[in-house]
Amino acid sequence: MEQVFSTKCFGGEQRVYKHKSKATGTDMEFAVFLPRAALDGFVCPSLVYLSGLTCTWENVTTKGLPQMHAAKHGMIFIAPDTSPRGEAVANDDGYDLGQAASFYLDATQEPWAPHFQMESYLTDELPDLLIDALPVDEDAIGITGHSMGGHGALTLALRHPDLFHSVSAFAPITNPVDCPWGQKAFNAYLGPDESQWAQHDACALIKEQGWDGDILIDQGLADDFMSSQLKPWAFEAACREAGVDLTLRLQGGYDHSYYFIASFLADHFAWHADRLE
Amino acid sequence: MEQVFSTKCFGGEQRVYKHKSKATGTDMEFAVFLPRAALDGFVCPSLVYLSGLTCTWENVTTKGLPQMHAAKHGMIFIAPDTSPRGEAVANDDGYDLGQAASFYLDATQEPWAPHFQMESYLTDELPDLLIDALPVDEDAIGITGHSMGGHGALTLALRHPDLFHSVSAFAPITNPVDCPWGQKAFNAYLGPDESQWAQHDACALIKEQGWDGDILIDQGLADDFMSSQLKPWAFEAACREAGVDLTLRLQGGYDHSYYFIASFLADHFAWHADRLE
Repeated sequence: MEQVFSTKCFGGEQRVYKHKSKATGTDMEFAVFLPRAALDGFVCPSLVYLSGLTCTWENVTTKGLPQMHAAKHGMIFIAPDTSPRGEAVANDDGYDLGQAASFYLDATQEPWAPHFQMESYLTDELPDLLIDALPVDEDAIGITGHSMGGHGALTLALRHPDLFHSVSAFAPITNPVDCPWGQKAFNAYLGPDESQWAQHDACALIKEQGWDGDILIDQGLADDFMSSQLKPWAFEAACREAGVDLTLRLQGGYDHSYYFIASFLADHFAWHADRLE
Repeated sequence: MEQVFSTKCFGGEQRVYKHKSKATGTDMEFAVFLPRAALDGFVCPSLVYLSGLTCTWENVTTKGLPQMHAAKHGMIFIAPDTSPRGEAVANDDGYDLGQAASFYLDATQEPWAPHFQMESYLTDELPDLLIDALPVDEDAIGITGHSMGGHGALTLALRHPDLFHSVSAFAPITNPVDCPWGQKAFNAYLGPDESQWAQHDACALIKEQGWDGDILIDQGLADDFMSSQLKPWAFEAACREAGVDLTLRLQGGYDHSYYFIASFLADHFAWHADRLE
């Protein structure tokens, strides 16, 4: 794990690491903010943030100002990449498939399976690396994300409740089996057998197994993708059916951009901090 | 003045405007954040932020999160561009001269003079436009900036004390007549007569005329440009000689990036808000 960038920020340190990943078979980069307490060696709660289509670790790191809130709450903030990358890695001309569009699952189909193993990377390899190298409290890890990353946060938390102790999302794709982005990606990565798809659909997962805690979602009402791709009401209905306490905040006038995320990121940090104490 | 972008952010609105400038003879863009009070029609104090070399209005608008602090203090935040732009506008191969490197003065030399009239633009044309179109309190306008924009903030405030009622800066070029960036730009824009240069040098200006108020500057000690280009101690000495109350905060470990600016932007907003009441 090589530190390729570091600078002081809000009294802590913003770093970027690069490492060879066994799960993806590629070099992977991720950003991590360490609050002062972590720099002083104290074990801290952490929040993992999964980004949306077309993004890298850089978007939230430079446009969301997570450092301010992480510093305030004494939390470590981790922003992984959105997929494996490189010339040897399969890709697609569309922005919504291939590199920067992994959907955070382990692909079973060619040409994706050799490198697109993001679920294994994020739930097995990366936590081990982080816990080994940094003062990450393994019993206090939350996860959040935006759009495709909101889908990732919800599904990875539901599939790995021993790893993730709190979950929230910004404008998540809640029901990928029933939207164009999800259908295209699941068909490519998982193949045409739709019974496999449900294992990576937040609505299906929560109805099947529930969630031992509450969930916070912010959704902008001026978000152009809300009706066609994100479908917050599908997840609201699924949570009601599953008896899971969902706080769905529909934010009038807000769009799908980082102006929306930045506006409510403080609330998500406070929410996770409360639950990771 | 045409609104080319608008989105909700921190309960207010982030907008971008485009307009034909008489001063520069080009189309100009600027970003403005309006807090909720301004949207409701209440006249508000404003903070103008001038960016550094290579930037546009976009850098601070997306990376500094000024909206959070502007919303808190009920202030309007205005981010102009760093120069005139376009194919018909003179330019230079260097990043430190020409487009995105105006140094915020009125050029007197060819080929720059026809369009590089940024002091007139920022102190005459733009304030009139803003006061006419938006609820900007003309008696409560502060100015700040970063690097070249810190030079712009200091020199424009000192040259136009009736317009700007408070001034601060992040890592400003304080003594451009005595650093490579400033010498290259002043020679090009103002010609070889160095007596003209002093009229745009913050150190010379403050010694000549003082400033009826105090000044706040943050400077990162891990900033690679500090010793060669920024020279905060030159301005500290000039303020001492002029009897001006300067708070120069040397921030250990911080560099020249937006990670530094974002870390201290809240303090600058609070400082200007106090002085613009």
